[in-house]
Amino acid sequence: MTFGIIMKKIRIGLIGCGTVGTGVVACIKNNAALIAARCDVQLSIVAIAVSDIEKKRDFDATSVVFTDNADTVVNSPDIDVIVELIGGTTDAKRYVLQALKNGKPVVTANKSLLAYHGDELFRVAAENGVDIYYEASVAGGVPIIKSLREGLSANHVERIYGILNGTCNYILTRMENDGVDFGDVLREAQDLGFAEADPSLDIDGHDTAHKTCILASLAYGEWIDVDQIFVEGIRGIDLQDIRNAARAGYKIKLLGIVKFDSSNIQMRVHPTLVSADSLLAKVSDEFNAVWVEGDIVGPTMLYGRGAGQDATASAVVADLVDVALNICFNSSRRVPPFRPHNSYNDVLSMDEIECRYYIRLSVDDVPNVMARIAQILGESGISIASVTQQELASDHLPIILITHTAKEVELNRALSKIEVLDVVREAPVVLRIEDIENDRDR
Amino acid sequence: MTFGIIMKKIRIGLIGCGTVGTGVVACIKNNAALIAARCDVQLSIVAIAVSDIEKKRDFDATSVVFTDNADTVVNSPDIDVIVELIGGTTDAKRYVLQALKNGKPVVTANKSLLAYHGDELFRVAAENGVDIYYEASVAGGVPIIKSLREGLSANHVERIYGILNGTCNYILTRMENDGVDFGDVLREAQDLGFAEADPSLDIDGHDTAHKTCILASLAYGEWIDVDQIFVEGIRGIDLQDIRNAARAGYKIKLLGIVKFDSSNIQMRVHPTLVSADSLLAKVSDEFNAVWVEGDIVGPTMLYGRGAGQDATASAVVADLVDVALNICFNSSRRVPPFRPHNSYNDVLSMDEIECRYYIRLSVDDVPNVMARIAQILGESGISIASVTQQELASDHLPIILITHTAKEVELNRALSKIEVLDVVREAPVVLRIEDIENDRDR
Repeated sequence: MTFGIIMKKIRIGLIGCGTVGTGVVACIKNNAALIAARCDVQLSIVAIAVSDIEKKRDFDATSVVFTDNADTVVNSPDIDVIVELIGGTTDAKRYVLQALKNGKPVVTANKSLLAYHGDELFRVAAENGVDIYYEASVAGGVPIIKSLREGLSANHVERIYGILNGTCNYILTRMENDGVDFGDVLREAQDLGFAEADPSLDIDGHDTAHKTCILASLAYGEWIDVDQIFVEGIRGIDLQDIRNAARAGYKIKLLGIVKFDSSNIQMRVHPTLVSADSLLAKVSDEFNAVWVEGDIVGPTMLYGRGAGQDATASAVVADLVDVALNICFNSSRRVPPFRPHNSYNDVLSMDEIECRYYIRLSVDDVPNVMARIAQILGESGISIASVTQQELASDHLPIILITHTAKEVELNRALSKIEVLDVVREAPVVLRIEDIENDRDR
Repeated sequence: MTFGIIMKKIRIGLIGCGTVGTGVVACIKNNAALIAARCDVQLSIVAIAVSDIEKKRDFDATSVVFTDNADTVVNSPDIDVIVELIGGTTDAKRYVLQALKNGKPVVTANKSLLAYHGDELFRVAAENGVDIYYEASVAGGVPIIKSLREGLSANHVERIYGILNGTCNYILTRMENDGVDFGDVLREAQDLGFAEADPSLDIDGHDTAHKTCILASLAYGEWIDVDQIFVEGIRGIDLQDIRNAARAGYKIKLLGIVKFDSSNIQMRVHPTLVSADSLLAKVSDEFNAVWVEGDIVGPTMLYGRGAGQDATASAVVADLVDVALNICFNSSRRVPPFRPHNSYNDVLSMDEIECRYYIRLSVDDVPNVMARIAQILGESGISIASVTQQELASDHLPIILITHTAKEVELNRALSKIEVLDVVREAPVVLRIEDIENDRDR
């Protein structure tokens, strides 16, 4: 370069070269000069570990050593930083631990690895004085990790609402916009390659839970056990609930929710009714967004592509620039990761949470039904904000109730009495409502 | 603190202690323990320069030295970092330059200072090996500067659309939602203290231009002359244009626009019609948002409070944490600021830009008017996407035209012919339309 500065070359080893790896190679190839000019570092991929070294690659990699032995990459003294992109929690964990023990910083996009083993990995990183960077693990190209770690460092995080899984958001958007059933959209998404052949990780909410775990851990400084997060996916969402929600002014989104709640925290993943007027409701298709409220800054939202080759590569390469600057400045662990700040007592059980509820009941069309249901709810201290009794669908009558704020344990108590009434035909459908933009001082 | 680490105390000098300064003092007081636990640094305000040292303050500042001589703060060997919060471009510039020459990093929220003197300030900072941090200068609590500098460092920035002035966005939102005239909302905002007694900086678009200058300079690595930015404010926005736009599916927002355009850049600030379905259209009241498109990451958006005591303080304190970490790690200038990357040739003149246009004409209700106007537009190669001829308003007929994409020079040529027609009663009202979310591969 021409700026009279001796630029440091950072030697990168990739473990895995699938979709994201190919994106990282392309991004560094296309924008290396820009990054060098902007940040004074030269990113150079020197080795790539792949399972099939004979496979034809979509890129020119003549200056790169390919190997099917990832250990040689992780252990090479000629490699400065390891990028883990193989996914999973077994081999990935082994390579990451070995890299950290070898004193190499690690960049990873692997949310399940962090959600299940973050505690151990960050402990080993600390013991070896190196960093783990993981911007790509949550919300792809959206710089949410950097924003939480650095941009909002002056804030106690009060609430996080994340649309964190592109597949789920795509499915819900298609159901809403085009009136297509869940099963049909899922099959279509699978055909298009958006959804996995085994879609459970996405649609049952586990992927969102992994990401929610990372965000909550980062917000509160300690690794939170992912199993403490309540998880409910979108498999049970019926088109009629999307329509009923729309009539009442809501959209249904799968949200990862973290709330600071009088010295405890709530963590949950579930389909949620959000006001159709809210910004989060406007996040469509495969896009992700994270709504963060800090005690000083108030509400903020970051939006962008949550996955895909290029958005993920953008995050991985930004992390590599950070690692490279740390190497150049000998400033590893400059921003301390996951430092406990004793900021919460307990993770609340679902019984203890409070919100408003959408309830769909299917009842016989006989006199006095509504009165009996209202009485049970009233006895549990649950007040009804609105009731919609729809026209006869078949031999039973759908009733849509929206409650005022109630405690989940009270709601469940009431529902257990309602669902055994002789006039109630099916198990009640219950969805939670969050008033995201209205709870604060807007 | 209790984590067995010797924490470095960073001694801060504030120049100015009005609204934002008071917020910074409160934020550090309230969240110092959190920041210390999270980031291993102890932020300590040791001196505050104010114009009136007798004035009663809303905070307990017994451990702070107050002075009316800012030079003593800037020159004190016992102060590690200077926070400039007095605003303006004269004294502020002098203090910032002196601090930099004294080897002290500077944190500032002063957008006009950077827009007019950024080139010189960053040159002096480079000569003295120190940093200028300025997260609070654009979009308050939204971490847009850090995102552009670091989070999106792998990307060539292709487009930026910013809602950057809370006063203007509040006025436009009130006009839209409540049908109140511009002048009435402005007076109301002034009474509430939202708008300045002299509102010109805000409503004539200059504040937005200063912030647009900073974003564009950061995106392209060189200080851009703020006078090269085309600026048009919202003073001329009539309620009928907001209503006409709404009928056609648009909202009117004051946007700061930066576009990379075949090796040149466009920079402009003007009221803009954006699709009512877009995320930017949903940014209401005093909130700010910045839409950034990178070549790798695609579209992203950051949203939050753009001004006010606390949101601005959040950004200033986050900058102070960054500065503190740089001091602890001896890593000043770790992220290079404003490094030229030779990424554009010229700033395009407005004649050369292309967009769609909203045109409101006021014409006599006589035969053949529309044909004459359409002919002139057609001769200039401007095709009409839609025409709405409204009911007779008084003695003249409003015609609303929406064009397909046209070059501004051609539009102006056509309009100069149209406005001299004997049937045209008033100067045409012209507003630009941007198709923000549709231009890309969504």
